[in-house]
Amino acid sequence: MQSPRLKAARVARLATTDPDDRPHLVPIVFALEGDTLYSAVDQKPKRSQKLRRIENARARPEVTILVDHYEEDWDRLWWIRLRGRARVLDHGDERERAFALLQEKYPQYRPEPPDGAVLAVDVTEVLEWTA
Amino acid sequence: MQSPRLKAARVARLATTDPDDRPHLVPIVFALEGDTLYSAVDQKPKRSQKLRRIENARARPEVTILVDHYEEDWDRLWWIRLRGRARVLDHGDERERAFALLQEKYPQYRPEPPDGAVLAVDVTEVLEWTA
Repeated sequence: MQSPRLKAARVARLATTDPDDRPHLVPIVFALEGDTLYSAVDQKPKRSQKLRRIENARARPEVTILVDHYEEDWDRLWWIRLRGRARVLDHGDERERAFALLQEKYPQYRPEPPDGAVLAVDVTEVLEWTA
Repeated sequence: MQSPRLKAARVARLATTDPDDRPHLVPIVFALEGDTLYSAVDQKPKRSQKLRRIENARARPEVTILVDHYEEDWDRLWWIRLRGRARVLDHGDERERAFALLQEKYPQYRPEPPDGAVLAVDVTEVLEWTA
């Protein structure tokens, strides 16, 4: 989890598994601490939509996360794939700490901090690919 | 599949399911025709790596694809999620047609066209989200 690209990335994509066994996919913003990645449910509309990933992670905690870089010069493509085990933080100190990390990384969170569940992913595998 | 954002997008992320039931995730370039999305395996190194998605799609064809837009103004975020059923084209006219579509969209493919399998995803659901 020492990758500078991973630390600098502003957005990632989180794959969970739907109850019907199909993959579910959503973009996330995230913060890192140690080997754990944190992502919060924000207060925007369509909240029920966004909670799907949380319910999926509760039921089947093995998740996959991708950070990738695209540009038209394909020699400069790269991606980083993380596999890990998710925990849903509904309350508690670790959730508060995650909010602080997210607000530190994303000024957008400062006026209106997230107040929902936090998804904590304990990363067990990191694969980095460069063209 | 009439979304101008979807048509204009240069990169997407494909989620399949690994044999151990965990989600697998990789960035793809793609071309659209009708309700089908095409993506090819290129000739870059790490080919065995990239074939994982193909073998996954053969075994469990229900896949999910995400196109998303990130910028620091979160009022301008959007994403489009596609669910569909994948077919692997190892040869034949549809595969050749897919190569032509990909070369038309991506000049990068013109000097060195892909020569591997094509993943054709017949899209059954499109969900578009805008902040």
